[in-house]
Amino acid sequence: MKKLINDPRAVVGDTVRGLASAHPDLVTVHRDPLFVTRAVGPAHGRVALVSGGGSGHEPLHAGFVGLGMLDAAVPGAVFTSPTPDQIIAATQAVDGGAGVIHIVKNYTGDVLNFETAGELCEAEGIEVRTVLVNDDVAVEDSLYTAGRRGVAGTVLVEKIVGAAAERGDSIDAVEKLGRKVVENVRSMGLALAPCTVPHAGKPSFELAEDEIEIGIGIHGEPGRRRVGLEPADALTEHLVTPVLDDLHVVAGDRVLLFVNGMGGTPLSELYIVFGRAAELVAERGATVERSLVGNYVTSLEMQGCSVTVLRLDDELAELWDAPVLTPALRWGV
Amino acid sequence: MKKLINDPRAVVGDTVRGLASAHPDLVTVHRDPLFVTRAVGPAHGRVALVSGGGSGHEPLHAGFVGLGMLDAAVPGAVFTSPTPDQIIAATQAVDGGAGVIHIVKNYTGDVLNFETAGELCEAEGIEVRTVLVNDDVAVEDSLYTAGRRGVAGTVLVEKIVGAAAERGDSIDAVEKLGRKVVENVRSMGLALAPCTVPHAGKPSFELAEDEIEIGIGIHGEPGRRRVGLEPADALTEHLVTPVLDDLHVVAGDRVLLFVNGMGGTPLSELYIVFGRAAELVAERGATVERSLVGNYVTSLEMQGCSVTVLRLDDELAELWDAPVLTPALRWGV
Repeated sequence: MKKLINDPRAVVGDTVRGLASAHPDLVTVHRDPLFVTRAVGPAHGRVALVSGGGSGHEPLHAGFVGLGMLDAAVPGAVFTSPTPDQIIAATQAVDGGAGVIHIVKNYTGDVLNFETAGELCEAEGIEVRTVLVNDDVAVEDSLYTAGRRGVAGTVLVEKIVGAAAERGDSIDAVEKLGRKVVENVRSMGLALAPCTVPHAGKPSFELAEDEIEIGIGIHGEPGRRRVGLEPADALTEHLVTPVLDDLHVVAGDRVLLFVNGMGGTPLSELYIVFGRAAELVAERGATVERSLVGNYVTSLEMQGCSVTVLRLDDELAELWDAPVLTPALRWGV
Repeated sequence: MKKLINDPRAVVGDTVRGLASAHPDLVTVHRDPLFVTRAVGPAHGRVALVSGGGSGHEPLHAGFVGLGMLDAAVPGAVFTSPTPDQIIAATQAVDGGAGVIHIVKNYTGDVLNFETAGELCEAEGIEVRTVLVNDDVAVEDSLYTAGRRGVAGTVLVEKIVGAAAERGDSIDAVEKLGRKVVENVRSMGLALAPCTVPHAGKPSFELAEDEIEIGIGIHGEPGRRRVGLEPADALTEHLVTPVLDDLHVVAGDRVLLFVNGMGGTPLSELYIVFGRAAELVAERGATVERSLVGNYVTSLEMQGCSVTVLRLDDELAELWDAPVLTPALRWGV
């Protein structure tokens, strides 16, 4: 196992140390328990957003803490849910009196621990709501998940919901918007090669030299099927068609198209996938009005990508365009 | 060879097609010969910047075309210099009457082809100057290079020089600034695993399971030496110490610290390297005033990273902070 790490047990701590060191103007790391907040807080008088989950998906979630997006992120161990005490501490730290929204990817451990934490915070008088992200159309009921998994669409939820919280929308309005984004976003991924969890020391699954896994999860969970070494255009179609079908994208629809790298795939290949994906959207008569291409929801050094489509309306497009200033996404400020 | 590509001969064309499809508001692709310009141009009344080189280093250079940075980028085949006719066409397309600066990484082929193109443009009445980037302290005279190689520091040159050109500085001033940035920037990289050039179909070099190459070039050129599987903190020191020594960083210096991924290394590992690199800068009594962490000058899917240090003064810091709006760097607008 070749990695730029010190000790497998120190990976998460060392990563957030570096994040805080690179962006002291944006984020602050809190320890015992571990969570990351904006450098300036709490969210006086407005709704605060907290997200979190297993580490290994960087820049998700700590890279999205900052103006116009999250107030706090709670990193668990690699591919392991954060504990309730981390979530409680983060929620308490950022609550500004207008309530806190938990944005949770649909994995059983995450759901349970955020639920436990939310109940304890409510008992202490903090109003907590949950927006559950389950955008992966590949499979129902997978390893770690009942229902659909939450994957790259989470970034779009955090960005858009964050913009609404930043402008001062009520907790009811922010929660309702979160559900609207979730209803309008779908994703699917593929892997060319697996990743290795540091403390495991060996690849999380195996793929033959001539195999590609279609519908992979962001922890290497099984997908729909394996195919051979097909051209990028054909592989892209295996992702885009189920996504567009499931979202019922029709002529006249406006969409945000997001090609996400899994961590070990070069940007050039992500752009090749984007080019074909955009053509497939256009072939349905829909219009790509916004785009995002890069490594935003990764699986350590996994080779592969996912395609996410979000159906836009004026409200969602405006919130997408709103200023954001975080370590991993920044524009308009 | 597992890659998200269609045909090895189509990689560059498919990549820029995707780039243009994702960012039609920012860049325009021109073909026969191939080059990429801002969507709006030419550079009426101000100095224009053109850069380029072999492909495979994305987002360099086409990802840095836009407001506050490049006017045009000229992509060659993978790891192959662009041809003079491409460079001439790009230079002619963006010239706005105040002259054109070519930003060239120090590789023999790039230097020759930009020189040939520059002379032909001069003969046609376009004033052309060249800023040569040679920031890699690892080795003198490497494969493809006489002198030092140009590597990740190129991004910092393009950003800072771009800001000066954007605000309307004269060609003399912009050229002089370019030389100042080059004099104050140094880099060094390492590789954990090689990359595979698509049309070659096999890895560009070999590393044993317990070997790491210190001082690697961005085309997999040999470095200084090979070491075993050391912790990230020790590996970081192998890069940072020669960089700080060569740049003569002393107590009181202000620096921009840039940890660049080679394409196949996850962001979490780059932040681990950044955390240690920042400590080493602090141990010299110098201050990290600006930072950049991510995949900006890559080598396809190579696993590894480089560390770049730029000595700052008020002028360079101000130009670094100036607005930039490109596919790969955007802030302040």
